[in-house]
Amino acid sequence: MNPTIDLLLRHRSVRAFTDAPVPRAHIEAAVRAGQAASTSSAVQAYCVIHVTDPATREALVPLTGGQRKVADCAAFFVVCGDVRRHRLICEDAGVEYDARLEAFLVAAVDASLFAQNAVVAFESLGYGICYVGGLRNELADVDRLLELPDGVYPLYGLCVGVPAEEPSERPRLPLPSVLFEDRYPSDDTVRAELAAYDATYRDYMEARSGKRRDWTGSMWRKFSRPARDRLAAYYASKGADFG
Amino acid sequence: MNPTIDLLLRHRSVRAFTDAPVPRAHIEAAVRAGQAASTSSAVQAYCVIHVTDPATREALVPLTGGQRKVADCAAFFVVCGDVRRHRLICEDAGVEYDARLEAFLVAAVDASLFAQNAVVAFESLGYGICYVGGLRNELADVDRLLELPDGVYPLYGLCVGVPAEEPSERPRLPLPSVLFEDRYPSDDTVRAELAAYDATYRDYMEARSGKRRDWTGSMWRKFSRPARDRLAAYYASKGADFG
Repeated sequence: MNPTIDLLLRHRSVRAFTDAPVPRAHIEAAVRAGQAASTSSAVQAYCVIHVTDPATREALVPLTGGQRKVADCAAFFVVCGDVRRHRLICEDAGVEYDARLEAFLVAAVDASLFAQNAVVAFESLGYGICYVGGLRNELADVDRLLELPDGVYPLYGLCVGVPAEEPSERPRLPLPSVLFEDRYPSDDTVRAELAAYDATYRDYMEARSGKRRDWTGSMWRKFSRPARDRLAAYYASKGADFG
Repeated sequence: MNPTIDLLLRHRSVRAFTDAPVPRAHIEAAVRAGQAASTSSAVQAYCVIHVTDPATREALVPLTGGQRKVADCAAFFVVCGDVRRHRLICEDAGVEYDARLEAFLVAAVDASLFAQNAVVAFESLGYGICYVGGLRNELADVDRLLELPDGVYPLYGLCVGVPAEEPSERPRLPLPSVLFEDRYPSDDTVRAELAAYDATYRDYMEARSGKRRDWTGSMWRKFSRPARDRLAAYYASKGADFG
């Protein structure tokens, strides 16, 4: 429809990168583009840590489920919700910082609008990216490694580099499964659309891995196991409140 | 640096719109661009409700703090984290859905990567947008109005339309306040940067409203008051778990 939309539609998560570095000027351009995103009441509740130390990068590999790309990609970032500034400001003003789920949620949302804009900027410069949710596997260890202070909530990693692979497109849910007019659809409508999506997804998985796997099968296997059950305790230890 | 980055940097939240409609083809293009964003393990934990009914739009104005633009903008959306599909799939597979903070956080992040891509697509088509965090003011009432089922977590609204104003740029934190190399800075470094930012911000606020207001002053006033303290109870009532 236009070059920007074409760029967004061309996005694939890239997991293999060449040795080409990401110049500082490109990192700054992406971060500035990230900062240009909307932020709730200008609170700007995020920060990003560019992890350049090779030993730290290597130590992050086992902490993210053995993802070699965390050490091998040209540039690796840890995207964080950040309410530390607000807490310092309250302290200096002699008032109590009122944490709540609202503050944590705003930090997660603000950080993600920031990160996605930065990602689009990186991709517009020819880089490939991959978000690393595996950063949440062992957050207490990541925290010690990066010496994060209170009020900083690491959310996910971000690998950036020149792509050394051209992944195929993973099919998304059909549009009518995510865009609704006025009302959420009935369970039967949802189920019928998921069955159609499963057929598309099986073909994709067969082409990618030789295994005909359903999306719905992947989902119930994923969501019937406890996932990262120390997450809330970790964030609470950094000052978050979910009440 | 390139036309896409220029577009990202040109973003301003727009709060006044002309009567020009947003054609369905543009909405679909933006949603497809949103879906092309990364999603944690392909879970696609989001949906978006296009609110077209004029009475519903009008009813949302008092529920979002009296924001007329919610009724007046050309197109209004409610962006939601959505784990309902996953819950239905688990139910049909005869397994228990394991909610946790992880599942809620993934929904908030997935929805926000989706929304920001959709926003960039809308802006690339010449529209202006404004996120409406005020949607979280009275979520139980919004929920009843939209008849949202369990597993759907409304996060924020989104106004879209052809801009009828050209807002000036609200200055962001200086780059060294959000981009760090390897280590989070000391409190003294943070404080020094905030003082410099306050000077910039005061000039901006004076030009915009005639009042020289600090960013730090806005922040401690904001964060020393309880904010949306029924949020966690509302999301829990829809099936979210923060443990």
